[in-house]
Amino acid sequence: MFAVDAVSKSVDQIIQHKIDQKTKPVGALGELESLAKTIARVQFSANAETKKLTIKEPGLLVFAADHGIAQYGVSIAPSEVTSQMVANFANGGAAINVFCRQMGLNLEIIDAGVLKPLGLENVTEHRLGNGTSAIHLAPAMTLEHVKQGFEAADEVVERHALSGCNVLALGEMGIGNTSAAAAIMAALLELDVHKCVGRGTGVNDKSFELKKALVNEALKRHGSKIVSPVHALAYVGGYEIVQMTGAILAATQRKMLVLVDGFISSVAALVAVKLHPAARDYLIFTHVSEEQGHQLLLEYLQAKPLLSLGLRLGEGTGAALAFPLVQAAVNFYNDMASFDGAGINNLA
Amino acid sequence: MFAVDAVSKSVDQIIQHKIDQKTKPVGALGELESLAKTIARVQFSANAETKKLTIKEPGLLVFAADHGIAQYGVSIAPSEVTSQMVANFANGGAAINVFCRQMGLNLEIIDAGVLKPLGLENVTEHRLGNGTSAIHLAPAMTLEHVKQGFEAADEVVERHALSGCNVLALGEMGIGNTSAAAAIMAALLELDVHKCVGRGTGVNDKSFELKKALVNEALKRHGSKIVSPVHALAYVGGYEIVQMTGAILAATQRKMLVLVDGFISSVAALVAVKLHPAARDYLIFTHVSEEQGHQLLLEYLQAKPLLSLGLRLGEGTGAALAFPLVQAAVNFYNDMASFDGAGINNLA
Repeated sequence: MFAVDAVSKSVDQIIQHKIDQKTKPVGALGELESLAKTIARVQFSANAETKKLTIKEPGLLVFAADHGIAQYGVSIAPSEVTSQMVANFANGGAAINVFCRQMGLNLEIIDAGVLKPLGLENVTEHRLGNGTSAIHLAPAMTLEHVKQGFEAADEVVERHALSGCNVLALGEMGIGNTSAAAAIMAALLELDVHKCVGRGTGVNDKSFELKKALVNEALKRHGSKIVSPVHALAYVGGYEIVQMTGAILAATQRKMLVLVDGFISSVAALVAVKLHPAARDYLIFTHVSEEQGHQLLLEYLQAKPLLSLGLRLGEGTGAALAFPLVQAAVNFYNDMASFDGAGINNLA
Repeated sequence: MFAVDAVSKSVDQIIQHKIDQKTKPVGALGELESLAKTIARVQFSANAETKKLTIKEPGLLVFAADHGIAQYGVSIAPSEVTSQMVANFANGGAAINVFCRQMGLNLEIIDAGVLKPLGLENVTEHRLGNGTSAIHLAPAMTLEHVKQGFEAADEVVERHALSGCNVLALGEMGIGNTSAAAAIMAALLELDVHKCVGRGTGVNDKSFELKKALVNEALKRHGSKIVSPVHALAYVGGYEIVQMTGAILAATQRKMLVLVDGFISSVAALVAVKLHPAARDYLIFTHVSEEQGHQLLLEYLQAKPLLSLGLRLGEGTGAALAFPLVQAAVNFYNDMASFDGAGINNLA
């Protein structure tokens, strides 16, 4: 249902020249220079000589949902905590609220399917169900759920696009969702579960072993039926991961930049890129989390994230914290003087 | 001339408890949690239970100076570029101007001794001379210069303190200053110059070999006379490095946080800590640069910097880019809900 165009690389030389003429040694702004190029490729298709990079109405979407597997002891917290945290988001008290306020990001919370409807005023209700089925026992959801989830995400992204937004960051909350994400990763990259399953927000050794065993069971049960990335979402995914994948495709279809957060967000990016490889061009990877498997996934996606701060919180916190760096890439590109203009010996 | 008090660790338990009661799994904010603790130790000596962390009138000081060694082919650019860049700073066109505007940092440019007086209105003139002597041929400066430099820095810091500032970041500009910084590091840590000398902003192989040879010559010539950190500054230092060291001591004496930028800034931190070990408690290391020797120096200082973005520009750019993370540590500590308050199952 989505169509994503590859970005134009025809502007690369112009962009590189402009960056190299800034009053600094060539390459001295390191990763910020690559970031400016990524943004320019997305935003410039013609007249790159005179254009400025822009960030408008940046948004951060947090998708929340519950997971049937959570009641089998794979997490440090019970499923109820997902809804409690959604209420915390709605009240402005969570880490992501604090960081979005600081960074000037428009935060939207989406209930993609927590245990029970919450009826909170400032939470978007796009519920695909009352949590998924436990993936080691049954398919997480149907293919129809995935389609509905993609449509719901498209609606959210469309609303942001209409308000002028050209950058969206993605976060999530869902007790049990590192199990689902690890299962998707293992299925799509054909990896052993041991390489994909981590300790989430910090389970002990016993729960960690159980988590690996259950994810393994899920893949044994459904593996042969996972014949496409969409099937991976349906059989072993989660409602929030479905909608995050949809949001990435909806945003990249509209030529918006997408800030990818941690492990769950990167798995949604993996599914999106497997469906539409051109989506990769629009993605900015913001941090490498402590979660086992994230590093490996980033390597597969050829991503070098901006931050490495030992975060393991989710919610989009890494994306929010990295946002000033994205803004800095835009600002140096737009506003730094060039050698000609500043009367400085050209170091380029 | 400075006196620096160690921070109080008596508040550690209160701080840790407060961080652990925030609505997140224990430790899930990674390095931001350590950062909040560092700031709390500096700012709280009593009544930590009820206090908030604060950032007020944050400043960024860029010290500029020239180096006699630069005319011997150790840099990609001639000494004239230092003054040209100071003019660029004064005109608001350099990377550090762009980033300070974005981050809300009060930028001050100090001429600590470039080749010739520039007479620019918005540049503080604290000139110790017309560039240092070439360190492989003569002492960079006298001990009296170091004293004057410390006094000048104290005056700058005092002015910021009086305007309410409690956080200062340090940057520099000085063609040739990686040679001086490497010489100081080698002298104070008794290391082989090969471990300390890097390519600066990007010299070729031939210049790199020459640079190592000249720094080695400088240390052979002056090594036996370097009997204290102050002597290292005088014999092989630079006017900007002297004033940065003075600024660190002046700021930490006033219980201000200090954001340390890249290699040069870290060498100034090394000298400051060698003079007053308690100063270390006030330092936040903001990034690891591409410069050879920086990683080693950070290890010695037991520092884990916030960013690793392949920067090699100086000017304080790494410190400016990391500033939102410092603000984020303050904000999560002050503004996140706690488990009690938010009605969430305690994950602590």
